[in-house]
Amino acid sequence: MPFEDLGTPSLLLNRDVFENNCRVMQERAQGAEVRLRPHMKTAKSVEAYKLATRGGFEGITVSTLAEADFFADAGVRDILYAVGIVPGKLTTAQKIQDKGVKLGLITDNAAVIPALDDEAERLGTTFSVAVEIDSGGGRGGVLSESADLLDLAAALKNSRRLSFEGVLTHAGHSYGFSTAEEIAEIAEQERLAVVRAAERLRKAGFSCPLVSAGSTPTAVFARSFEGLSEIRPGVYMFGDVDQLFIGTCKADEIAATVLTSVIGHNRSSRRLLVDAGGLALSKDISASIFSSQSGYGLVCKLDGTIIDEIFVESVHQEHGLIAAVSGNLPFEDYPVGSRLRILPIHVCMTVAAYEHYEVHDAQGSLVARWNRVNRW
Amino acid sequence: MPFEDLGTPSLLLNRDVFENNCRVMQERAQGAEVRLRPHMKTAKSVEAYKLATRGGFEGITVSTLAEADFFADAGVRDILYAVGIVPGKLTTAQKIQDKGVKLGLITDNAAVIPALDDEAERLGTTFSVAVEIDSGGGRGGVLSESADLLDLAAALKNSRRLSFEGVLTHAGHSYGFSTAEEIAEIAEQERLAVVRAAERLRKAGFSCPLVSAGSTPTAVFARSFEGLSEIRPGVYMFGDVDQLFIGTCKADEIAATVLTSVIGHNRSSRRLLVDAGGLALSKDISASIFSSQSGYGLVCKLDGTIIDEIFVESVHQEHGLIAAVSGNLPFEDYPVGSRLRILPIHVCMTVAAYEHYEVHDAQGSLVARWNRVNRW
Repeated sequence: MPFEDLGTPSLLLNRDVFENNCRVMQERAQGAEVRLRPHMKTAKSVEAYKLATRGGFEGITVSTLAEADFFADAGVRDILYAVGIVPGKLTTAQKIQDKGVKLGLITDNAAVIPALDDEAERLGTTFSVAVEIDSGGGRGGVLSESADLLDLAAALKNSRRLSFEGVLTHAGHSYGFSTAEEIAEIAEQERLAVVRAAERLRKAGFSCPLVSAGSTPTAVFARSFEGLSEIRPGVYMFGDVDQLFIGTCKADEIAATVLTSVIGHNRSSRRLLVDAGGLALSKDISASIFSSQSGYGLVCKLDGTIIDEIFVESVHQEHGLIAAVSGNLPFEDYPVGSRLRILPIHVCMTVAAYEHYEVHDAQGSLVARWNRVNRW
Repeated sequence: MPFEDLGTPSLLLNRDVFENNCRVMQERAQGAEVRLRPHMKTAKSVEAYKLATRGGFEGITVSTLAEADFFADAGVRDILYAVGIVPGKLTTAQKIQDKGVKLGLITDNAAVIPALDDEAERLGTTFSVAVEIDSGGGRGGVLSESADLLDLAAALKNSRRLSFEGVLTHAGHSYGFSTAEEIAEIAEQERLAVVRAAERLRKAGFSCPLVSAGSTPTAVFARSFEGLSEIRPGVYMFGDVDQLFIGTCKADEIAATVLTSVIGHNRSSRRLLVDAGGLALSKDISASIFSSQSGYGLVCKLDGTIIDEIFVESVHQEHGLIAAVSGNLPFEDYPVGSRLRILPIHVCMTVAAYEHYEVHDAQGSLVARWNRVNRW
């Protein structure tokens, strides 16, 4: 039986699929002559980093300073921390820079710049900061046509210890669409937001080397990367059920799955119980905007074949409840003690519950264990 | 500034509140003359265990074998693993028993009993197994009036290496109600489900020492515990926004909060950005059935005072977006770099993202760090 030496729940990673996903994106970026700075917030693994940057630019994007520190220790020398910086984090940032790393920081707030500058002064160091642009996602950033943009660049340029590096955006709202045309539109919006911001800045006399954009959907469906210095997708390495519906991957291109045991049959509620619940899968149900029958995960056999008839309908902390699409669950096909694999809805959230990946090849043989850097 | 030595996000635990919550439930159980076997699935901490069992029964409930092993090492000698057992987990279960622990297991499936028995035989040991009853939650368990109940007890009794211990249920559906009357009804349903199952079993000649029920809402609002040998609440130690709406705790009785930094101001979308996102808070939005303005967490000042006007409206992996109830966010009150605390929606999910609690007293002074046992 494949994976029989593993306990459940465990996090499996198909190395061959992962490697191919990395290769395809690297080729796409190189074909479009744009630098790929992969976002390591999902993978959080050194081995994954090596595959994601193979044959390309060696810099990365991270979502926590814990990741930055981890990858610094692994020898990465160009790291962009793509979450708004605050003065209280600069001591840690300095320690990472002191490991020989070119660490990029971002902000969208002019009012905090004096405090950042004071803290850099106190630490006796300098920091390179880019300005975050809101390209429609409504998360971080200022609008590219706003007065704030020039104010921010000026405040950075005029500080003692900070330098202005450029502009960055992330079209997180690309996750809400499922046609190539719609996502290509978002990609163009994302691209133009930073390209126009860079143009305004250059016209006003600022140097703007960093013009960074990217998410997996926009990286896959963009019609143009013109004017961008780099793209920063991350989820493409894995794929997941969200990406399947969005259309950036096929089912057999999903690299990570959760190995689970059937632990009960609830015949009165017609549910199969598995030991992968809210902690093992996460409570992310983002694919529900695309399908009422995706729930907390799709289900596949041990060999990876998807079982179309069932899905993880609900979760409790340590219980997953699998229901049949038809309502009629063939309990005899899933005896208690048997095992299944679950395709994650939103892989970034699911893999975060695990300390390592149990890495296997396309044939289902375990070949390695890759550590993750979790938390902050 | 309180907690200034901590990075963000960090998990704070108010020891005084936690201790009081433990004391109140212990007194309630003792007043009702029912044994309290606290569920450690939320706390997962030895120090928490000591407070939860102080002055009472020393046995506990756990949701993973990793917890069972952790508490066994800490000296706990009576542990109920309240998730359906499968043969593949018995090697681990045996190792825990070999540490001197009375380990209780559960099942709701007669078909797996021969395989459990064979595995116990192979391991040269015995296991004590209870039967899970579905008291209306539709998760694990057989119905108390079903034929399955007697079949399960008989299969356990007639096995070579397994013994029948009794019946257990959990009214998880109590979390969907918010009046004392409704929850008291669920509690009675929960109690009667196992009490009637025990009566049927005893009438059929089975000894049934374990008659176990419990969730925090039903433990708080039950009118009677008659016929139960024990109750198994867990969340009561902490409280959370769900429990606040359900009515089992007040806002100032919530023990765990997430310390976060304001990292950005998005003036176009009128959102405050904080560094506690989906990983730091979890994606659990269960309180949304009670309020459209709870989202991913309520917000309080560093001193713990709730700020009624704002809440965590959405999350991305490392970003929380705080919106104003009125739509009009006073950005000047929350400068970038300032800090807030977030009350968790469903504390079991939130605390699981952290390796330890930063424990503070009622005055906000850090007094300890308690480790958690996460994963499986």
